[in-house]
Amino acid sequence: MREAVVGIDVGGTRIKAALVTPTGDVLAETVRPTPAGVGPRLGEVSVHAVGELTGAVAGAVDVLAVGVAVPGLVDELAGIGVWSANLGWRDLDLRGTIAAHVDVPVAIGHDVRSGLLAEHRLGAAREADNVLFVPLGTGLASAILCRGKLVTGGLWTGEIGHVIVVPDGPLCGCGQRGCLEALSSAGAIGRRWSQETGIVGDAQEVARRAEAGEEVARRVWQEAIETLAIMVAPVVAAAGTELVLIGGGLVHAGDTLLDPLRAELTARLGRDDVAVEAAALGDRSGSLGAATIALDLVGR
Amino acid sequence: MREAVVGIDVGGTRIKAALVTPTGDVLAETVRPTPAGVGPRLGEVSVHAVGELTGAVAGAVDVLAVGVAVPGLVDELAGIGVWSANLGWRDLDLRGTIAAHVDVPVAIGHDVRSGLLAEHRLGAAREADNVLFVPLGTGLASAILCRGKLVTGGLWTGEIGHVIVVPDGPLCGCGQRGCLEALSSAGAIGRRWSQETGIVGDAQEVARRAEAGEEVARRVWQEAIETLAIMVAPVVAAAGTELVLIGGGLVHAGDTLLDPLRAELTARLGRDDVAVEAAALGDRSGSLGAATIALDLVGR
Repeated sequence: MREAVVGIDVGGTRIKAALVTPTGDVLAETVRPTPAGVGPRLGEVSVHAVGELTGAVAGAVDVLAVGVAVPGLVDELAGIGVWSANLGWRDLDLRGTIAAHVDVPVAIGHDVRSGLLAEHRLGAAREADNVLFVPLGTGLASAILCRGKLVTGGLWTGEIGHVIVVPDGPLCGCGQRGCLEALSSAGAIGRRWSQETGIVGDAQEVARRAEAGEEVARRVWQEAIETLAIMVAPVVAAAGTELVLIGGGLVHAGDTLLDPLRAELTARLGRDDVAVEAAALGDRSGSLGAATIALDLVGR
Repeated sequence: MREAVVGIDVGGTRIKAALVTPTGDVLAETVRPTPAGVGPRLGEVSVHAVGELTGAVAGAVDVLAVGVAVPGLVDELAGIGVWSANLGWRDLDLRGTIAAHVDVPVAIGHDVRSGLLAEHRLGAAREADNVLFVPLGTGLASAILCRGKLVTGGLWTGEIGHVIVVPDGPLCGCGQRGCLEALSSAGAIGRRWSQETGIVGDAQEVARRAEAGEEVARRVWQEAIETLAIMVAPVVAAAGTELVLIGGGLVHAGDTLLDPLRAELTARLGRDDVAVEAAALGDRSGSLGAATIALDLVGR
């Protein structure tokens, strides 16, 4: 009987799950919409995901552990979801809620930190031990790997999205002005361009138009990258980062994103030996990361 | 016979050494000028320090280990001083050089990282596990503690001094403009004020005059603090820092330094739950830090 773990990424809009073997083979994956008020129902959600995934592969699978990755403030050691604006919970006993329904060990992780672990084991950071991971999505958070280990401090670890980079900059959903998220998130790039041009479009559209030389798109794009570099350079210097890994849908823009970011970072750091690359796992980093922490939990 | 370790802090101008017991009692301390070309002579320097320190206390002392802390780029695991501008070495086998003269285990550390360990064990960070340490001296570097452990990435870990914060800002000794060190180091504060006023004075003088309301002093002081906050906020957010510990001689300025830094950090982070305090060990953090890594090396 094959052995595997189940990784579940609980996002604000979708729940992604993956069945992964100890050698990193992905046997099956599922995606479903996140139900309203999902927090207390995560036990049933997990059981359902395990059933769906094991049912999708031929032959029996021995599920060794379940890993669940969530956004927001997470206490991984205690297994508590301390706070998530998107998922609407506060001090939720994630591990207890899930363990009451699942008869294998349960690991709880932060989505971005788990995602970085997955990139390190299976993705674009396999060769690097000192990494800063920044997925640019609707929102923005970060994770740090030093000497191959995740760096986790207090509860606010990685919450870089609402640090103010440009005082008196654009208004953010959080009520402040000039937060990183209000300039450099995929959401902000699309929104700022649409507001100025009156055309509906997302960050991908802005990337295409910036590449084609359209003036507003170039300005919005360049400001997003400059702002990101202002935030990233101090972290790279303080943590001894050797690879900055950019994730989220925006990495489809490729060198339109990475080249100017490399240039900005080199200018701010005064050295050009920090690599800037696109993450490899895309929106699967959360579920594969959840599987990674499940494998770690059972020592596989 | 009492047991103790010797910690030696090799600075650009002075070598400080301390004899410290496993319980953290400092039995003796010495300071001497750093001789020119000290690198290859660190073996003799260490033997001399051990002799001086053990000779200064009544009764016999069993020296269990020697710790040596140095600035610049350090590979602590390999015991190599990779590069130090001030001390003029490159790829120097520190551990080998010292171990050839000393018959106890030798630990090699980075001065600021070792200093943070000392503040955590003996100083102002005893109650905190998630700390960012920034000693403001002639130069500037940083160290991060997460969950009570030092965060060490690549060789450039902690080298925040020459990250550019203010493009087109004041010229730095490194040839760039607007580096953190060119605005926020103790050296820069004194120098900038002296250049504008034509009066010879150091950072302490600027602090006193800023406190008294003198306009140039206030501006130089405020710019130093704003620049520091721009650098510190991203690191605090990414690393989950709960205590920012400011070291170096500048902390004698007390709340003249800490209050505006607290205000700037709160404004940039959008939350006020990050403590900002003065380090307790002052310029002894390096030697006590070196003793700390020596104690760790022998499991005491």
